[in-house]
Amino acid sequence: MLLFRHGAPGQEGPGIVDRNGKLRDLTDRVADITSETIGAGIVAQISGLDPAELPLLPEGTRIGPCVGKVGKFVCVGLNYLDHAAEAGMPTPAEPILFMKATTSIVGPNDDVIMPRGAEKLDWEVELGIVIGSVARDIEEDAAEACIAGYCVVNDVSERSFQLERGGQWLKGKSADSFGPIGPYMVARAAVADPHNLDLWLEVDGHRYQNGNTSNMIFKVPFLVSYISRFMTLMPGDIIATGTPAGVGMGQRPPVYLKDGAQMRLCVSGLGEQAQTVRTRGTAT
Amino acid sequence: MLLFRHGAPGQEGPGIVDRNGKLRDLTDRVADITSETIGAGIVAQISGLDPAELPLLPEGTRIGPCVGKVGKFVCVGLNYLDHAAEAGMPTPAEPILFMKATTSIVGPNDDVIMPRGAEKLDWEVELGIVIGSVARDIEEDAAEACIAGYCVVNDVSERSFQLERGGQWLKGKSADSFGPIGPYMVARAAVADPHNLDLWLEVDGHRYQNGNTSNMIFKVPFLVSYISRFMTLMPGDIIATGTPAGVGMGQRPPVYLKDGAQMRLCVSGLGEQAQTVRTRGTAT
Repeated sequence: MLLFRHGAPGQEGPGIVDRNGKLRDLTDRVADITSETIGAGIVAQISGLDPAELPLLPEGTRIGPCVGKVGKFVCVGLNYLDHAAEAGMPTPAEPILFMKATTSIVGPNDDVIMPRGAEKLDWEVELGIVIGSVARDIEEDAAEACIAGYCVVNDVSERSFQLERGGQWLKGKSADSFGPIGPYMVARAAVADPHNLDLWLEVDGHRYQNGNTSNMIFKVPFLVSYISRFMTLMPGDIIATGTPAGVGMGQRPPVYLKDGAQMRLCVSGLGEQAQTVRTRGTAT
Repeated sequence: MLLFRHGAPGQEGPGIVDRNGKLRDLTDRVADITSETIGAGIVAQISGLDPAELPLLPEGTRIGPCVGKVGKFVCVGLNYLDHAAEAGMPTPAEPILFMKATTSIVGPNDDVIMPRGAEKLDWEVELGIVIGSVARDIEEDAAEACIAGYCVVNDVSERSFQLERGGQWLKGKSADSFGPIGPYMVARAAVADPHNLDLWLEVDGHRYQNGNTSNMIFKVPFLVSYISRFMTLMPGDIIATGTPAGVGMGQRPPVYLKDGAQMRLCVSGLGEQAQTVRTRGTAT
């Protein structure tokens, strides 16, 4: 089941993809897909509906972030061996955690806006976990039941803010538009194996990242359990599980995003994102 | 104007302190004080009411977090010279930023619960800023207008999670109950000078922290402006501005919180907090 949100920024309503890949409108049938409704069973509610009976959405409908009112956006750092190596950082003995501001969240095809002073704007395709129920210090074998679904995340990063501005990665991860999520929240039951998904990212047609989630150092159930020891995970929280090799910082010489650059990225089965990079004031 | 929230956890309603220090109930007059209503002008709305006409709240009413539905809880690290020194860390050239999970937020007098595996539980009294309007890459001289008010924050920290578990402080800052805020949100206009407030913290009657906000390295308007360059601040967001010397980690030998320990802390004019430390399962 592929769910999404559509409409103008901040006014999105729910939608579902039918078996022919058409986008259908759920607005008149269920509440919006947000942290508040995911915990109240909206995914089960939608699964009882027949998409073929729902109105089709017009071509060109904007797709918004796949979850609204996200409470926490938690990220795992250096969770692929090849990425840790290219970043020149040691392989972590246990997961590195950091946060992105939830105000960074945008739709999967919205422009990525370079903040003032940015000079090392970079990309990171990641498998995202959408939490479905409260997870407080849970065991690994209880983790799967706490997952509502999965989504594509581009963990957009300004490396100079992240690494050259005095401690803690938060600064380089949190600007508006640095957190495209979606297009779909794919219900957990529809993802046969989250540890066998290809994921790739291209900039201006050149494929820089080309990995598979089988290479994650720490796996999905362990990550949910581990994070839940340090903070209580709530419905609608997003966990970005780390990126494989091939980020801009890892190129020799490094390659960073410029105004007008086009990103395309995908996690197999979870849909594709496409963003254009803009300096502020040039956004369309 | 001293505003607060009262009632059972998750079901708080608004209140105000009258000129005699009595707690009055605003529930039937205005909406709750949350990130949603602060941006919609609730502070101005309340300032038009006469507290003497409002119902008195019964003695022993629980005081909740002074802001509901907080979107972001941003903290400034090492913002007092004496604290940087005791932590054995260099004085920052620009502010260090990190986040606490918003799920850490509790009322000012709720129990602080030691998470499983905690062994170096520590305290940090701080001046908190409550954001009142959207701040996106603003100049320093525009910062004050974006502040709704101030509050006391105890930035409770598990040092072993923060410093010994592999990178990024988030892990040691985010457990449930690690973020008491309040009792009051004191409207900005009622704080003559946020850079001349005494702040202190006692554990079991011993005063460990005794500082003044005049010793902050980076001041309030600069902090709001600086943070707004890296993420958009929204109404109801909380900024904890750093702690003076005297945390447990800074004692020789270090002193950490044990089950049953009593904390009292205060920022002058903003009210007092009192928490009892409990291991999970012993909370009353």
